[in-house]
Order: sequence, then structure tokens, then C-alpha cells
Amino acid sequence: MNPLHEKQITTSMSHSHSAISLRDIQTAAARIAAHVIRTPLVRCEQLSQRWKCDVHFKAENLQHVGAFKARGAINAVLSLDSDVAPRGVVTHSSGNHAAALARAASLRQIPAHVVMPHNSPANKLAAVRSYGVEPVLCEPNSAAREEAARKLRDETGATLIHPFNDPQVMAGQGTVGLEILEQLPEVDAVIVPVGGGGLLSGVLMAIKSQYPDIAVYAAEPEWADDAARSLKSGRIELPARYDTVADGLRTHLGDLTFPIIRALVNDILVVSEEAILAATRTMLRDVRLVAEPSGAVALAALAENYAHFEGQRVAVVVSGGNLDLDGLKRL
Amino acid sequence: MNPLHEKQITTSMSHSHSAISLRDIQTAAARIAAHVIRTPLVRCEQLSQRWKCDVHFKAENLQHVGAFKARGAINAVLSLDSDVAPRGVVTHSSGNHAAALARAASLRQIPAHVVMPHNSPANKLAAVRSYGVEPVLCEPNSAAREEAARKLRDETGATLIHPFNDPQVMAGQGTVGLEILEQLPEVDAVIVPVGGGGLLSGVLMAIKSQYPDIAVYAAEPEWADDAARSLKSGRIELPARYDTVADGLRTHLGDLTFPIIRALVNDILVVSEEAILAATRTMLRDVRLVAEPSGAVALAALAENYAHFEGQRVAVVVSGGNLDLDGLKRL
Repeated sequence: MNPLHEKQITTSMSHSHSAISLRDIQTAAARIAAHVIRTPLVRCEQLSQRWKCDVHFKAENLQHVGAFKARGAINAVLSLDSDVAPRGVVTHSSGNHAAALARAASLRQIPAHVVMPHNSPANKLAAVRSYGVEPVLCEPNSAAREEAARKLRDETGATLIHPFNDPQVMAGQGTVGLEILEQLPEVDAVIVPVGGGGLLSGVLMAIKSQYPDIAVYAAEPEWADDAARSLKSGRIELPARYDTVADGLRTHLGDLTFPIIRALVNDILVVSEEAILAATRTMLRDVRLVAEPSGAVALAALAENYAHFEGQRVAVVVSGGNLDLDGLKRL
Repeated sequence: MNPLHEKQITTSMSHSHSAISLRDIQTAAARIAAHVIRTPLVRCEQLSQRWKCDVHFKAENLQHVGAFKARGAINAVLSLDSDVAPRGVVTHSSGNHAAALARAASLRQIPAHVVMPHNSPANKLAAVRSYGVEPVLCEPNSAAREEAARKLRDETGATLIHPFNDPQVMAGQGTVGLEILEQLPEVDAVIVPVGGGGLLSGVLMAIKSQYPDIAVYAAEPEWADDAARSLKSGRIELPARYDTVADGLRTHLGDLTFPIIRALVNDILVVSEEAILAATRTMLRDVRLVAEPSGAVALAALAENYAHFEGQRVAVVVSGGNLDLDGLKRL
């Protein structure tokens, strides 16, 4: 169980020294508006009654490519200078950022190269291919991914668009936070899944820079609890293993995302594999939105800690919906 | 295949003689606003590109009780006179109307009695029980359902709220049409599943009374193509069998819904069981909304006839999302 101690916000952090500002996120929102979906924030009556809090889902599973990653990728690609852009973009990703970058590159009509772990789900590999890009497969760990991406960059002259440790990517993901504020101005708490921290740092900056009293929690798999351990140790820790069912969260924080998270997050809620699978089922059966396991981790955190949120208006970010048929069978 | 001949609208129909008017639907919208979700209309980029038309989904799977039925049921229950209401309500339904009426009755704190076919999906039986109502089971045909409901009404003095052949129910369902017009004013075509015709007649009246040039198509399972045959014969026909996978559509039209449908619908698109199952899978995998088979019938009709809709803005009504785990396994 998580103590959910209300952490004092570290007011010593100067926002001007962080990788992104509120203004960057606002600029991103304007830049990407025509290319992303303003996803609905959907209230679930059944869970609200069950848990005695007002439960809303920010449905990024309905975003293009089925994940919030479409936001950061298109913001990064549209931000490229016109002399650099034609050489293309390169990245590594366990899946959704790969498809998002392939889509963004095709919108700007530039080449994309993507490195993916060989154990990526079949549907995520297929999504990249649907944009005419053949993924380069690698071993499923951060070092192998980063090395393969660097090699491709050196060979092609393409710009590396990191899946999370990139200011334009972080600013793009932060638009999720702006939309939650617009869609539910009276929100009390937001729960966001954390892998590399691109979404979390963006949402934190979007919300905390304006409304520091709104609680923002991260949700993380126990099998990849590196962010929770990083918060405790004060430095970026690595996941102990790379096989959580929440395949989108099998990575560590970046040096740009970590300082923002450390300064602004209220707490990190760690959830078991069983809780993640149960939440994925709850999404299908009770919420009727398709979430992939990574996309259900924030709901798992609410389910395991609902008593803490009694009487509150809670926004749960459903980060992605690319549940493949193998994944369905496992449920 | 369906010829999709553009049927001349029968202008001889006097709207003032039909069971509901546009005004009834507008009144219903105001009455039920606090008790229903204004469900999102979600565009799907992937299917839009695949079929060269602009595909939007009206996500009534995200409605309370997971189906549009919440609208008509609460409109009917709130419309009851205060001297009649305390004796409660009674109905028969293959599922979603049952849960919707149980919910509506619990909101008004009056008793509800519901008759359901014994082969109703387990999750739909459970949904009714979740509002404290034990379903009365009957044989899976219209005659048995109606007789059991009449008997309960006679015993209890409760008001019968028919699942579709009721003006207040039809008006409530019609609010789906009003919302589509507000959310996508430039819509060219709307596709609506038809069972008893409550949703279809309501949507037709909402749209055609204001914008007769917007095409409204019904979608119906081949195994329950009674509405298509009724349109041809000019009288209400019965389904030939009662076992389509689209369990919400195993019923015939009513004498209040049929005249509106006959006068206003552009055409009825009939789809196979295979097409319905394929569309249910497409909803899960590509749209990332959970649809029950009945809720995917309109998408099946689009998938089978997409060439007809080239270049058009199409709103596909996802009528319900109560897909149970047995249903999932079948996919």
C-alpha cells in the first residue's frame, strides 16, 4: 500500500531553469491543434459511485495512433527547422512513440527511422509499418535502444526525437494537462502513468505552474518502480526488470523529465501486475474504453487507493489504447 | 449488397400526426440533461483514411448503463405524473433498457420490475441487479416478453415503460440526433442501428424535421431484417429468428416507430453476422471504444458500403458497449 503522504511542493525549483515552461506547452497546443484530437474527458458514474469520488477519464486512447504520444511527436516534428527536417527523424520506442513519430513524419513528408525492442507487441510493430516505416529491431533494454538509434542518426543525418527526454516532446504531452484544466476546471487530483516521464513532466508543468494546489500523482508498475526509487534516492534509477505487462512503461526517467517530476509531483503510486490487469479489465467492462495495460496503470492506482480520493474530482489519464488480441486473451 | 438507392422522402407524412415532434425531443433534452452524458463524437483518422470518408463515432457506449437507453428511460420516468410514479414502472427488454429503467427508477426512488429473456447476456442481467432489481426471466420472443410485462403491470399497478414503442422513450433517444447536429453541423450522413426503432425514429425526427437533406440510414442484422422487410411490405414484419449476435436488435418495429421510419429513413442497410463480429473487432482494435455487437452494427453497415459514402462526413452511432467476457472470447 502507498502511504500517499501529501508531499510539500519543493518551491525552491525555479521554473525558468526547467526544460519546459507553461508557455512552451501553450505554444505546443496552438502548433499541434490541427493535427491532434482534443480527446474527451469522460465521467464514469459506476466507478464514481463505487469509490465515492468523481471519476473522469482523459481518453488519450482515442488520440491518433491510439496514444498521447501523437502530441509530442507532432510538436517535435513541426518544430524542426526547415533546413534540418528533410534529413528526417529517428527514434527508439517500445511502441506508441514509434507510430506517433512515423505519423508525424508522414504528415510533414519527411523520412522516419524507428528502433523498437524485438519483444514489442505485434500491433505496435504493425502500426509503424502502416505509415510506411519498417522498424529496426533491438534488444529490449534502454542501452541497446539508444545505441541503435544513435547509429541510425549518424548514418542518415536524421534528427533524434527522443521518446520523452526532449523539450518539444514534453511540451506536446503537456497539452493533456491544459485540456484537463479546461474540461474540468474544478479538478482536485490528476493521476498520470509514468515511464520515461514525458507525459508526467508535461502535465505537471501545465497544471502546477498555474494551480499548485491541484494534486498530481504518478502511477507506476511495481516491476518498473524506478521513478518511485528515483524520487527517494534523488537520482535517476533504472528499472529492476523489463517485463511488466505495462510495456509502455519499461523505461527510466530522463535528465530533463526527472527534475520537474522531483520538484512537482505529489507522490508516485506503485501498483502490482495483478492490479494493472484488473484495471485493464475494468476499463473494458465498466468504462467501455479500450486501454492497453500501460494505459490502465493510473486507474489501477486509483483502484488501489480510492479511499484517499473520497469526495474528490479525479482525472485519470488513459494514456493509450493499443491492446492487441494477445493482450485481450491474457485478460 | 445494398443498392442504397436514395429514397425520395415521403413528404406526405404530417409530422403533427406522428408519435413525437422535434419539440418533444427538445423538451426531453432539457429534462434529462442533468442525468445523461453528452457523449463525445469521436473522429477516427485510421478508418477515415481507409474508407476515404470522414468517420465519426457517436459514443453512446460511454453513456450511463453503457447505452443510449439511459436517455429514453430517464425521460419516461421523469415524465410520470407524481400520483402515478410511486406505483413504479415495469418493462421488458433484452438488456440495456432494463438496466436503464432500473437506474431511472432508482434516481426517482420508485420501484422497477423488469422482464428479460432467459438468454440475455450475463452482464446485462448483472447490470439490472446492480440497481437492486431482480429480473423476471421469460422465453426469448416478443410475445412472451410482452405478456409477462403486462401481467406484472396488472399485479403491481406500475406504469409500463415500453423499451421503444413509447413517445417519451422515443423522444429521449432522439436527443442523440440533436447532439450529433450540434457536434458536427456539417454532417452528411448518419447511420443508426435498428431493433424496435426507438433510437432510429427519434434520431430521424430530430434530424429530418430540421435538415431533410442529411441522409439517415438504418443498419440491421440479416438474421433480424424485419425492419427492411417491413419497409418493403408496408406493414410491421417479425424477425425470422431471434438469435443474431446483435442481441439488442432481436425485436420488431412498433406501431409508433414504424410510421416515422417509413416516412423518413433513407434506406436500411442489412449486414451479416460475420460483418457484425468483424465490426465489433474493428471497434476494439482500431477505434478503441468497446461496442457490444448491436452497437457495432452501424459500423458494419459502413464497412460493407463505404464506397457509397466517399467524401462524406458520416456519424456512426455506437449504441451500446456492454460486451461481456463471453462475447469477447467469441471475437
